[in-house]
Amino acid sequence: MVSIQEVAKHNKKNDVWVIIHGKAYDVTEFLPSHPGGTKIIMRYAGADCTKKFDPVHPPDTLDKYLPKDKHLGEVTGGLGIKEEEKTIDPNELKRLDMVKRMPPLHQIYNLMDFEYVARHTMEANGWAYYSSGCDDEITLRENHYAYQRIYFIPRILVNVTNVDFTTTMLGCKSSVPFYVTATALGKLGHQDGEKVLTRSCGSHGVIQMIPTLASCSFDEIVDAALPDQDQWFQLYVNSNRKVTEKLVRHAEARGMKGLFITVDAPQLGRREKDMRSKYLADAAEVQDEENDGEIDRSQGAARAISSFIDTGLCWEDLKWFRSITNMPIVLKGVLSTEDALKAISCGVQGIVLSNHGGRQLEFSRSGIEILADLMPILHKRGLTDKIEVFVDGGVRRATDILKAIALGAKGVGIGRPFLYAMSTYGDNGVKKAFQILKDELLMNMRLLGVTSLDQLNEDYVDTRGLLNRFNAGDELFHKVYEPLDNPKFKPKL
Amino acid sequence: MVSIQEVAKHNKKNDVWVIIHGKAYDVTEFLPSHPGGTKIIMRYAGADCTKKFDPVHPPDTLDKYLPKDKHLGEVTGGLGIKEEEKTIDPNELKRLDMVKRMPPLHQIYNLMDFEYVARHTMEANGWAYYSSGCDDEITLRENHYAYQRIYFIPRILVNVTNVDFTTTMLGCKSSVPFYVTATALGKLGHQDGEKVLTRSCGSHGVIQMIPTLASCSFDEIVDAALPDQDQWFQLYVNSNRKVTEKLVRHAEARGMKGLFITVDAPQLGRREKDMRSKYLADAAEVQDEENDGEIDRSQGAARAISSFIDTGLCWEDLKWFRSITNMPIVLKGVLSTEDALKAISCGVQGIVLSNHGGRQLEFSRSGIEILADLMPILHKRGLTDKIEVFVDGGVRRATDILKAIALGAKGVGIGRPFLYAMSTYGDNGVKKAFQILKDELLMNMRLLGVTSLDQLNEDYVDTRGLLNRFNAGDELFHKVYEPLDNPKFKPKL
Amino acid sequence: MVSIQEVAKHNKKNDVWVIIHGKAYDVTEFLPSHPGGTKIIMRYAGADCTKKFDPVHPPDTLDKYLPKDKHLGEVTGGLGIKEEEKTIDPNELKRLDMVKRMPPLHQIYNLMDFEYVARHTMEANGWAYYSSGCDDEITLRENHYAYQRIYFIPRILVNVTNVDFTTTMLGCKSSVPFYVTATALGKLGHQDGEKVLTRSCGSHGVIQMIPTLASCSFDEIVDAALPDQDQWFQLYVNSNRKVTEKLVRHAEARGMKGLFITVDAPQLGRREKDMRSKYLADAAEVQDEENDGEIDRSQGAARAISSFIDTGLCWEDLKWFRSITNMPIVLKGVLSTEDALKAISCGVQGIVLSNHGGRQLEFSRSGIEILADLMPILHKRGLTDKIEVFVDGGVRRATDILKAIALGAKGVGIGRPFLYAMSTYGDNGVKKAFQILKDELLMNMRLLGVTSLDQLNEDYVDTRGLLNRFNAGDELFHKVYEPLDNPKFKPKL
Amino acid sequence: MVSIQEVAKHNKKNDVWVIIHGKAYDVTEFLPSHPGGTKIIMRYAGADCTKKFDPVHPPDTLDKYLPKDKHLGEVTGGLGIKEEEKTIDPNELKRLDMVKRMPPLHQIYNLMDFEYVARHTMEANGWAYYSSGCDDEITLRENHYAYQRIYFIPRILVNVTNVDFTTTMLGCKSSVPFYVTATALGKLGHQDGEKVLTRSCGSHGVIQMIPTLASCSFDEIVDAALPDQDQWFQLYVNSNRKVTEKLVRHAEARGMKGLFITVDAPQLGRREKDMRSKYLADAAEVQDEENDGEIDRSQGAARAISSFIDTGLCWEDLKWFRSITNMPIVLKGVLSTEDALKAISCGVQGIVLSNHGGRQLEFSRSGIEILADLMPILHKRGLTDKIEVFVDGGVRRATDILKAIALGAKGVGIGRPFLYAMSTYGDNGVKKAFQILKDELLMNMRLLGVTSLDQLNEDYVDTRGLLNRFNAGDELFHKVYEPLDNPKFKPKL
Repeated sequence: MVSIQEVAKHNKKNDVWVIIHGKAYDVTEFLPSHPGGTKIIMRYAGADCTKKFDPVHPPDTLDKYLPKDKHLGEVTGGLGIKEEEKTIDPNELKRLDMVKRMPPLHQIYNLMDFEYVARHTMEANGWAYYSSGCDDEITLRENHYAYQRIYFIPRILVNVTNVDFTTTMLGCKSSVPFYVTATALGKLGHQDGEKVLTRSCGSHGVIQMIPTLASCSFDEIVDAALPDQDQWFQLYVNSNRKVTEKLVRHAEARGMKGLFITVDAPQLGRREKDMRSKYLADAAEVQDEENDGEIDRSQGAARAISSFIDTGLCWEDLKWFRSITNMPIVLKGVLSTEDALKAISCGVQGIVLSNHGGRQLEFSRSGIEILADLMPILHKRGLTDKIEVFVDGGVRRATDILKAIALGAKGVGIGRPFLYAMSTYGDNGVKKAFQILKDELLMNMRLLGVTSLDQLNEDYVDTRGLLNRFNAGDELFHKVYEPLDNPKFKPKL
Repeated sequence: MVSIQEVAKHNKKNDVWVIIHGKAYDVTEFLPSHPGGTKIIMRYAGADCTKKFDPVHPPDTLDKYLPKDKHLGEVTGGLGIKEEEKTIDPNELKRLDMVKRMPPLHQIYNLMDFEYVARHTMEANGWAYYSSGCDDEITLRENHYAYQRIYFIPRILVNVTNVDFTTTMLGCKSSVPFYVTATALGKLGHQDGEKVLTRSCGSHGVIQMIPTLASCSFDEIVDAALPDQDQWFQLYVNSNRKVTEKLVRHAEARGMKGLFITVDAPQLGRREKDMRSKYLADAAEVQDEENDGEIDRSQGAARAISSFIDTGLCWEDLKWFRSITNMPIVLKGVLSTEDALKAISCGVQGIVLSNHGGRQLEFSRSGIEILADLMPILHKRGLTDKIEVFVDGGVRRATDILKAIALGAKGVGIGRPFLYAMSTYGDNGVKKAFQILKDELLMNMRLLGVTSLDQLNEDYVDTRGLLNRFNAGDELFHKVYEPLDNPKFKPKL
Repeated sequence: MVSIQEVAKHNKKNDVWVIIHGKAYDVTEFLPSHPGGTKIIMRYAGADCTKKFDPVHPPDTLDKYLPKDKHLGEVTGGLGIKEEEKTIDPNELKRLDMVKRMPPLHQIYNLMDFEYVARHTMEANGWAYYSSGCDDEITLRENHYAYQRIYFIPRILVNVTNVDFTTTMLGCKSSVPFYVTATALGKLGHQDGEKVLTRSCGSHGVIQMIPTLASCSFDEIVDAALPDQDQWFQLYVNSNRKVTEKLVRHAEARGMKGLFITVDAPQLGRREKDMRSKYLADAAEVQDEENDGEIDRSQGAARAISSFIDTGLCWEDLKWFRSITNMPIVLKGVLSTEDALKAISCGVQGIVLSNHGGRQLEFSRSGIEILADLMPILHKRGLTDKIEVFVDGGVRRATDILKAIALGAKGVGIGRPFLYAMSTYGDNGVKKAFQILKDELLMNMRLLGVTSLDQLNEDYVDTRGLLNRFNAGDELFHKVYEPLDNPKFKPKL
Repeated sequence: MVSIQEVAKHNKKNDVWVIIHGKAYDVTEFLPSHPGGTKIIMRYAGADCTKKFDPVHPPDTLDKYLPKDKHLGEVTGGLGIKEEEKTIDPNELKRLDMVKRMPPLHQIYNLMDFEYVARHTMEANGWAYYSSGCDDEITLRENHYAYQRIYFIPRILVNVTNVDFTTTMLGCKSSVPFYVTATALGKLGHQDGEKVLTRSCGSHGVIQMIPTLASCSFDEIVDAALPDQDQWFQLYVNSNRKVTEKLVRHAEARGMKGLFITVDAPQLGRREKDMRSKYLADAAEVQDEENDGEIDRSQGAARAISSFIDTGLCWEDLKWFRSITNMPIVLKGVLSTEDALKAISCGVQGIVLSNHGGRQLEFSRSGIEILADLMPILHKRGLTDKIEVFVDGGVRRATDILKAIALGAKGVGIGRPFLYAMSTYGDNGVKKAFQILKDELLMNMRLLGVTSLDQLNEDYVDTRGLLNRFNAGDELFHKVYEPLDNPKFKPKL
């Protein structure tokens, strides 16, 4: 038991207490290694930060990362002192009105429609975090456009009465050739967070990749799954390898069927749309705000982030991973043919050709473009069965999925669209999204003249225009894409 | 004689009566095999559905498909009970005003102009049905744009005083190298439906392809033709081959000069613009509406459609077709060189390179693009006289037609533009459309330096830019193309 | 002397009189051979047509083409009866206001600026006639865009103190490597018509090509030239070769230094923007208006035009031309390498690679694109000195001119820009336009590192992107280009 | 001492006095050789021109270029007579309001953001001078777009904990692989002019290239540097070589570490946006204004400019430069492979592939495009270590810099972005700009999988789309780019 007045005294860098869910914690020693930087904590030094803490931390965070002796017990004396006052934001009022007037779910015809509703009904922070990309978001959009430069060469007069689009990925049966890829901070879109996706995956036979940076705890997500439901685990490697080893061993123990090691994020990308939206807890923004004036602190926030994600992760580490787990290992974020070949020689089970949804390196190529370069080389060298190749980024239609399959992908990861479905219509939304893709898969395989995925190959696609990077002008995408904003001038007096 | 009260009682799935044109029908047994799905019928269960029935069913439908003992006789007791109330839709009022102010026909200078008037004067349902394409309608637009990537290499100083653009297609003489291709549901645009096209074709020496899914009955359309007027028949193959055989034999008996078997539609495409426009009778929308919530009914509507169009149609079936008819057989919807070669080896008389007007498989290539790939191969293998190659999709100008002819097409199918001409100015509109194309053909052949179609060949076109899929920015097209809409938020209270 | 009442009686097709400049003429026999069609005359049958006659006919037309016995003498009794009433058109009022507020000439920085002022200050008819192109005006715009796909490879560290851009074309010295190409109906832009161009050319040492379809008479234009001023003559070949022979012999007698035979216009193109603007005297519109309803009159207006321009003109005729003149003969409107080679073998002195300013065959390639294909072939065959190759269409900047010269053109024709300069600022405008181009030539040759035109060659340009037909987005062009309009709905009541 | 009334009498071309900072000067003899033309001086003949003089002339101009006997002493009798009256311009009022409401610096996330603020807060003259390019500004924009056609091929699983982006250019150590390139007239953006850049460079370890046409005097700029701060000198070669020799020797004496001779500007380009903005002191506008009417004065202004910049500069002159200085010599403005090879054979130490920021020759290629052509040739010929290759133009992001480095550039010049940073936030702005680029460099090198610049090579970039000149649609750029304007119609009465 500690009084609120006592807590309020501990508000300096060398002595910081905060209140979370009515309990006080001493975070002084933890401060420098906080992945989100020190500044965001210092804003709530001596005060209640529950509202900022919740959406970005799993409930077991404090138990896991803060030693017991720093848990100071319940706070007496009322609410936190420094809680932010609410101002009535006209945009927020407009949003709340839109939420009430949401279109009925049966008016959602495609995955873009979810994004459209999400853009108008999600909280600004959540929308900005989910929808943003790095730099000018050219890569983000290219991920979508790249698919539009591939045309089909379908076959006719094939008996397509019975169409089967089930498949097996990393030994897991799947009702569809796509999976729900790992995305962070699910509670920004839905109070149940990633569990919504888990439940929907269970009912539809879709594999979910559980993110390291989930809002729900790992165990919550696993517990939400059906007994026979396959899940994979996405891993950000911690510079403290003990932490990582514990995570990996626990994941395997809980039945994860694949370990996807993220290799394209030694440092998290700067996402300016997100920074602009003033999401205080986001590390990138903190990085920026402290960056003002003349103080050269380029190492500051960057180092803060490196304390969490290991900038030193390298090929040699794969042996160590192999030594601590029997899960199939997949490298998520391969962007070159050279690294794909290296991955094969290292004996990993799979790779994901991915640019992290356009959130990391601007002008990295889209997964589908890399696939079109890579697979002919694997074919030529007889390596196609040595590894499972996945692709993610920009997938919105079953035609996108089928193009990837035709070019040699084993499966396709889809992230944001399911977040938008979840953030707007919850479980029903995600299930509807799955059903839309299934309907599109059925229809498009029939129209392609194939009855199972293994019949698709590169003869079914025309990629000759793949490098003519143009914009096909699909209206739905243009209506959901929100351009980057400029810095705001101060209001008129 | 049956009372309206009696009819009203039969409004459950296992006992359904409906009223059409003042007569009652028991459709209980027919329900599961209705090509448009069960839901649309259930909406009018026990009630009058005449207004929804008429535009999408030929008048002989009930006689043909519903056994006589299900015809329950005239209904007494007034109008149907559940008829929809009319609300005054401001868009509809605006449309009716535009209809009154239609531009005089002599202000129509090109085929796009008809589409412009149609967009502003057609009923929303009809416009949506005619103008829509699959998915994001990229293919729909590509069909038009593809022609703009082909440039002419004309010849000068040729005596072009006398220019002849007559031709022969499948043994039929034609005044022009284009034909009116099959399009469904003509009564959505004009009360006389497809007969308008028939009459105009008769007066201008143009061949009409009669659609399986016409609003008028097949015989009505044939009867509207002049004695020596050539017509072709487009066939959706029914999974009940008896029905198909009957149709084909009847078509031949009535003098059809060609049988165009549609091979690109084992399942009808999803056309979201059309779904959005709430055309209740359209199968695709029904498919969507029932698809709500958590019920997995992906097999539902799809199966309903397969009960009508045969998903099992395959190459082997061509022998059977050959055995039941002497009409030239043409495969409509060929999309690959491989299938074109297969068609030749199967001995069919023709193929139509077509993506079904951008209504089936999104990202199938435009007919003209496939033609440019195919014909050099046919030339090399000496196969050009083994088969007649037709192209359709996106044709709006005589220059489009002449490009196709130069690349080796025997003729070009045109659909929507004539529907728009019919829907706005009726017979005079369609005839004007023909005349515009004839004037353009005359002028452009003179400017190309050719006096007959056989002088055109690949030396007259520059296709080097064909794969640089760009948008030439023709204003008229941009003004008539209506972008896809988002789901509508509910109205403010 | 004839009374106005008498004239009014002669208003039928078999008996037509009209009044022009106060005199009556019997045009009954002339009617069927009027190049502009019969309808336009019939509108003024029995009435005064002076205002429609003047801008499109040189003053000597009646003397030349109508036999003396059809000249009926002065009309008594007042003005014509059927003269159109003037309605106060708000657009015209706006235009007249803009005319008063024209920017001062020193605010004109480039050729586009003239076009901008012209668009806002020219009479609608004149603007439409000058600015229009065929079909969707894609070719018209491509002429401009094509230059933007060619980049320069300049050289540095060359002494460019003294730069000389004089040249010799067809043996005529010119102060610049461009000439004023032939354009019709100069009085639509300025009351002095083509004479404005003649005077400006005289003062600037620029060669003018005199059009067959000038508003001024040929002799008026020649008389306006300085004693030593070189002029060329553009010829539409009349199906009556006597007429043509007379024109050619007269042109040579009056000192023309080149005969440019137009070979890309056996039939005049349809220019819908122009038709839409209701310029009544324009043949194309007449063709359209009569084309209404069900009457098939495709041969009608077409024949009317063929009576003037010879659709039968062919390669064999070149010998005849050679026999009647010693002027250098140039074929204007060559669009293929094949025809360029044929022209050389026929011994003509020059060719103009031109698509008639985008007014004839839509999708004919731009002159500069043809040049880039042609010249390497001429080089390879050692034919470059056998013929002078000119280019026209789309030229707006000295950079355009220099690209054409580098690719092997002897000179470049420029038409519309000088018409716009003339229509806005008269003589001073055209001279300013010349001066702007001279300033740009001087500057750009210095920046290219060349001091005379013969130093330019294909090593100075990068044409690798020439076939990627894109739109560079130059704002000035976009602001002056007026998109095609749709048919107008009738006004609300 | 001279009275203001006396000065006012000397206002004719053959007798011109002006007042600057309260002193009178006789500029009659200087008039014809004024680099900015005679007209701008004549506007202030007999009057005070201080306000026009200051931003475009270093303070030591009069002492340096005007003989002492032309310095007439202090003026008595009040202010200049002909001083312009100030009118209240609503645009200027709006600008002043925006200046007050400038976004806080920490809201600036990228270099584009500075430009956005600058566009709304800079004085019109300064903005127009800095932002303008030649002709239609296609080259200006291409410089930016070209980078967007290059994609990265990053490597994963590299230990990127320690990243080093220091480098050495012309023997000077630099904390970054970019330098502040020379740009003229710094006082148009900030009262301290180029010294702001000098101070910021000093604090961040960035090399500054000092411009010949600085607003500050050369010595002022050098004096503003730290003792060990490296600077380079950019040289416009004067046709009076004595002047040039003096400049060069003085530059070397003051410690300049490199001499960048501008070779792409024998004549200054016409920048119409700048002309339009009515910046009276700009030579180009003077050139235009006098150019009116019928007087052919194409040699006039051109000669005025040649009197300052030597149009005769050529390869032979390099020996002379070598003879007067030991500084490394770099040719700034090389635009062809041929000239790059020639530069190597002449033994210069470096070249800058540059089109002068799109301000000189329209349609010269972007530096990065030339680099991609050049370096493979240097590699093949083993010449890569014979010369240092720099690139400038269009660089806005660290990704741009890293692409240039990967393609073989030693360093990258950046100009306008630092001017905009300086013009909006002064020293803090420029430092922030440096810090942003450093942060981006650190992050992007990590994401590329490299820890030092020498690890980057052509295998890290995909340039296959480099010639497909398209526009990637980055919103921030579109919002800062101000399209060219048309000539203004006079105001309504």
